[in-house]
Amino acid sequence: MINDNMFSDLERLEMQMQFITEVDKMKSIMRRTLITDKTRNENDAEHSFHIALMAMTLYEYCDDKSVDLLRVLKMLLVHDLVEIYAGDTFAYDPKGNLDKLEREMVAAERIFGMLPSEQGDEYKALWEEFDAEKTADALFATCVDRLQPLILNYMSDGKAWKDAHVTAEMVKQRMSVIGKASKPLYEMAKGLIKNAQQKGYLI
Amino acid sequence: MINDNMFSDLERLEMQMQFITEVDKMKSIMRRTLITDKTRNENDAEHSFHIALMAMTLYEYCDDKSVDLLRVLKMLLVHDLVEIYAGDTFAYDPKGNLDKLEREMVAAERIFGMLPSEQGDEYKALWEEFDAEKTADALFATCVDRLQPLILNYMSDGKAWKDAHVTAEMVKQRMSVIGKASKPLYEMAKGLIKNAQQKGYLI
Repeated sequence: MINDNMFSDLERLEMQMQFITEVDKMKSIMRRTLITDKTRNENDAEHSFHIALMAMTLYEYCDDKSVDLLRVLKMLLVHDLVEIYAGDTFAYDPKGNLDKLEREMVAAERIFGMLPSEQGDEYKALWEEFDAEKTADALFATCVDRLQPLILNYMSDGKAWKDAHVTAEMVKQRMSVIGKASKPLYEMAKGLIKNAQQKGYLI
Repeated sequence: MINDNMFSDLERLEMQMQFITEVDKMKSIMRRTLITDKTRNENDAEHSFHIALMAMTLYEYCDDKSVDLLRVLKMLLVHDLVEIYAGDTFAYDPKGNLDKLEREMVAAERIFGMLPSEQGDEYKALWEEFDAEKTADALFATCVDRLQPLILNYMSDGKAWKDAHVTAEMVKQRMSVIGKASKPLYEMAKGLIKNAQQKGYLI
């Protein structure tokens, strides 16, 4: 890892500016989900913005009142950065998910390694915590990360689901983690899935 | 304004979900700035993501150590929502800036009015605080909001500047507020402007 003592303050800021320039690539990492006007797919930068705004708006629905919104926002802002190199892996693609962890571990070293070491370590730890889905902060972050594509897929008549032959059972399974963070949001998610089935968006 | 007492909990969540669906339109509000690969212009959702990540990464450079990062992140996530209806006003467009405030005031009532009243009021107050550029939180939020297009314009060979005949003096003037939030970031910004001039990106 990078040794901070080797760098002056200016070099520290230069590393951070390189990182800030590099993360611009999030705007070109495309997801399977369509935006609500159905004109095109969403990218990772847009998705990250949307879930951060969702987290602050829906924070009151956390079952666990110890959830730290600042940590959740930080987690959401960094959680997809590894996709700059590893690409977006569609949730319902079993093949792509086989080597997802390996690809993302390599990518994490590369993107977080651009930062001064203690800051890179902080961001990497937030990403790992998010992926582990164990702490209250990570569970609420995961909750909005799952809800957002559910809403977009519903609003775009289930196109991404239909294209990938996704079933209601698969979506229910994927959304079940929402119940670990928020009962009211889980009830809402289940209602949306039911409506999506009735409208024929989901098999 | 909306009276919360008129709504049950479910109606409250439904209002918030309508708002969350509406803010998807941020992905179609185009800015003048190009993304760093120069293939296209940036949109408001991408910009908001980028400056939020910049704020958490550059937080250590705040001159005023009382800056509250959570408030800054919230401010950055809501600060451009009025543009869903008011559109993006280019910083160096004197004509567009004449009626900007009026257009945005109407837009603010519309977008923040979708939320339960106390939450809509909180978001509107954050937007107003940002726009006033007076508090330490607002000044740091403004600092990253100004730095980000400076970096993107520099990385895209000054195309947006050239197209609008923007001079180095105009950019210096616009960036001067950075000095009110962070001396090191202001020094860096001035260095970037100087380099941009030398490369012929700025008149």
